[in-house]
Amino acid sequence: MDEDFKTLNSKLSEIGDIGAAIALMYWDQSTYMPEGSAMARGKQLGTLSKMSHEMFVDPSIGQLLKKLADMESSNPYDSFAASIIRVTKREYDKATKVPSELVSRISKHNAEKGQAWTKARPANDFTMVQPYLAKTVDYGRELADCFPGYEHIADPLIDSADYGMKASSIRKLFSELREELVPMVRKITECEPIDDSFFKQAYDKDMQFEFGKMLAKDIGYSFDTGREDMAPHPFTISFSIHDVRITTRIDPNDPRDALFSTVHEAGHGMYEQGVDPAFEGTALAGGTSSGVHESQSRLWENIVGRSKGFWKFYYPKLQKQFSVQLSNVTLDQFYKGVNKVDRSLIRTDADEVTYNLHVMLRFDLELDMLEGKLDTADLADEWKKRFKADMGIEVPNDTDGVLQDIHWYHSMIGGQFQGYTLGNVMASQFYEAALKAHPEIPRQIENGKFDTLHTWLKNMIYQHGSKFTANELVEQVTGKPLTIEPYMKYLKEKYSEIYGIQL
Amino acid sequence: MDEDFKTLNSKLSEIGDIGAAIALMYWDQSTYMPEGSAMARGKQLGTLSKMSHEMFVDPSIGQLLKKLADMESSNPYDSFAASIIRVTKREYDKATKVPSELVSRISKHNAEKGQAWTKARPANDFTMVQPYLAKTVDYGRELADCFPGYEHIADPLIDSADYGMKASSIRKLFSELREELVPMVRKITECEPIDDSFFKQAYDKDMQFEFGKMLAKDIGYSFDTGREDMAPHPFTISFSIHDVRITTRIDPNDPRDALFSTVHEAGHGMYEQGVDPAFEGTALAGGTSSGVHESQSRLWENIVGRSKGFWKFYYPKLQKQFSVQLSNVTLDQFYKGVNKVDRSLIRTDADEVTYNLHVMLRFDLELDMLEGKLDTADLADEWKKRFKADMGIEVPNDTDGVLQDIHWYHSMIGGQFQGYTLGNVMASQFYEAALKAHPEIPRQIENGKFDTLHTWLKNMIYQHGSKFTANELVEQVTGKPLTIEPYMKYLKEKYSEIYGIQL
Repeated sequence: MDEDFKTLNSKLSEIGDIGAAIALMYWDQSTYMPEGSAMARGKQLGTLSKMSHEMFVDPSIGQLLKKLADMESSNPYDSFAASIIRVTKREYDKATKVPSELVSRISKHNAEKGQAWTKARPANDFTMVQPYLAKTVDYGRELADCFPGYEHIADPLIDSADYGMKASSIRKLFSELREELVPMVRKITECEPIDDSFFKQAYDKDMQFEFGKMLAKDIGYSFDTGREDMAPHPFTISFSIHDVRITTRIDPNDPRDALFSTVHEAGHGMYEQGVDPAFEGTALAGGTSSGVHESQSRLWENIVGRSKGFWKFYYPKLQKQFSVQLSNVTLDQFYKGVNKVDRSLIRTDADEVTYNLHVMLRFDLELDMLEGKLDTADLADEWKKRFKADMGIEVPNDTDGVLQDIHWYHSMIGGQFQGYTLGNVMASQFYEAALKAHPEIPRQIENGKFDTLHTWLKNMIYQHGSKFTANELVEQVTGKPLTIEPYMKYLKEKYSEIYGIQL
Repeated sequence: MDEDFKTLNSKLSEIGDIGAAIALMYWDQSTYMPEGSAMARGKQLGTLSKMSHEMFVDPSIGQLLKKLADMESSNPYDSFAASIIRVTKREYDKATKVPSELVSRISKHNAEKGQAWTKARPANDFTMVQPYLAKTVDYGRELADCFPGYEHIADPLIDSADYGMKASSIRKLFSELREELVPMVRKITECEPIDDSFFKQAYDKDMQFEFGKMLAKDIGYSFDTGREDMAPHPFTISFSIHDVRITTRIDPNDPRDALFSTVHEAGHGMYEQGVDPAFEGTALAGGTSSGVHESQSRLWENIVGRSKGFWKFYYPKLQKQFSVQLSNVTLDQFYKGVNKVDRSLIRTDADEVTYNLHVMLRFDLELDMLEGKLDTADLADEWKKRFKADMGIEVPNDTDGVLQDIHWYHSMIGGQFQGYTLGNVMASQFYEAALKAHPEIPRQIENGKFDTLHTWLKNMIYQHGSKFTANELVEQVTGKPLTIEPYMKYLKEKYSEIYGIQL
């Protein structure tokens, strides 16, 4: 193997080891770290992040990449060598184009803003964070200007989560989606509401946790190279391809939270566990974009985990575990209960149908702020107005409105939310392709067998890690560009049946 | 403040942050890490350790230390500045005198030896590791030769755990101790054995864990800056002065393991938590030596935690928790049960009286091997012979003999064990001084109050971190050099009473 290529990989692998330490510190911080350790941990994270950044933007990496240009062009696009060089170069260019001085100004700003938000949200006082957000928008523009030649000012920000996606194409996709979803939500919420009151009682926490773990294991998440812990906001994190951990939270009075967050995170986890082990320590390890990652979690959570076939197999088991609570609840009632559509204020509580309206609202607001069409001073009011228009309900306060999500308050404005809906759309398109290749998948799911689907996803998506961009992957796996069709078809069929109407 | 001093501290603090990441990786490895992650974790630890070592032995640190020589000499010995410079210089000299090439040869050797040991121990086959041990002795000599001018070849090895202690003085202390302990053990074991059969039944694991945590909290271990988890071999580890974690293990059929290992680790933990917060990130953070550290854990575990006064307060609570198991057991029976003297094969299971015989056996063998008096090929037989002579019982196999402890098999031969007994000896000497200053301590313990003792230890020992050497600390706290007198007095009084004999 080329000596320069070896040197590059060994440097990247060391940076990856620091990255693993940083990830472990985050995991610990969200799961087990004692409260009094917060300051010390902040400093430790700062030191290691700075160190890893400095090692990566070191000119020696740039020189190696330059020397490896020939190796990239003389190898096939999808080869290990060409892919490593290409993806590393992309990340290197991104990292070096932004002056470290700006990076540290932004991270200081975000830390202060985050502090302010933790007070503003419970106080229902948007004015406490508004000046910070104004500054964040300025920073967003400054950041975008490090990447001259962009088509839309949000594109460089979107790029960092969903490389290759553009504001223009996402906007088009989202407007098609909104056109379908707004009337769909209206139609469904005019129906007799589903009775899900049986969920609202005490369910033993340990039993919830164990049941969730069983589901994660059954669908293919490996506990040999993973584990599940409790965290206030469920997440998945990797320290290597062989150590990918998931978390969940448990509502003692509603088992849906734990069950579906576990299956969701297991979906993320299986993606990371399924990356080609040869990619360990390289820029190719880990999922390729926020959208593709979300497609994998939502595919397992919703398309599989909230399907009738899935519960045909698992509901008798759940009913046995929670016989007091569920003995009088039929499979059909249960299935409807886990798919109840409800116009609610909080994104993370939203059902499959209304969820994207939450996301698209945020995405549009991000673009409008970056374009200068919307002043952050008007953001809270604009939120309420648009929410009412999309969802048909009033937002009674900012705590459950513009202040609900951490994203804008600990990070940038721009590029924060599109991945969630892109993921939903991709999930259906991927699943359609899976069914085409293996029409037996739904029958297998009814029998608690997930191998065929899991293996297909591994071969088509997981194993490639970050080798292909989201757009490349969608084309390659499904034979066409991203489209809302399979997703709308899925929603219409599923919810027509559930609500007994024609959507 | 002097600019060079500031630069030194900021460099050390960054190295400390990497150290914290390394410690977190170890903690995770021993508590929660999934099995499949072992290889990746090994590599990550390797990278970070190498990085931290390279940063520390960098000539720029040496230059700073040279420039700061004046600052050291112009400030009082126990000042912050002089202490930092002195202790850092000591560590720097130690780290730079050993060629990194030797360090990496040794660590490779140790890794291979550790692998061999995990097979040799269950196979009861000493020959599988003997050639490795022979090599280890050679390495020990090579290492010692990096520090010319030593008095005994084991001194440089002892130094790394118990700085300032010498083989000669430890040998003298230990031979005094053996002279007293061997007949004491004989006398005690000639008495009617204590009936501790009531311990040998099922005790709920969660309740054991919770009771242990209550004890740790009561004696002064802070859960705001700490936590307790399960681990196969209990240990204490620090990620900062504000994050010091303890671990325990639970025997479902004997509560003593969990209770006393928790109090023991809490003693270590309180020491680390009690270091002056100004020392954070410097060479002064953390306990000063293996002996002093062990003195703090053993003081709380044995002198406090196995005292009658302690259980006068806690036994009714324990009895209430485990009423089925303990309702017919009196305080006196319980107290005797937790202090039963028994000649057993395994060091970590040993009682207070026999424990040091286990340690001294190992210490003597280490010196003999390094001196060339004992060939590793004869080690297993020599172990059996000396064990019989000291303890009066036969060692039936090597698994429970020379192969029982991990120390020689994952690290050096020399400097591994003396700290345990030094700690026992120091603990009594420290406690005697505490009682002299505060004769009310035993009465407070009977009432579940530990503030006076805890505060005294904090002021006299904990807060100083590594500022003073073990010998300095002993002199300073007790007004005399290390002596076995208080320890022998403690053992004689306690066990004469328990066994109703004159020791």
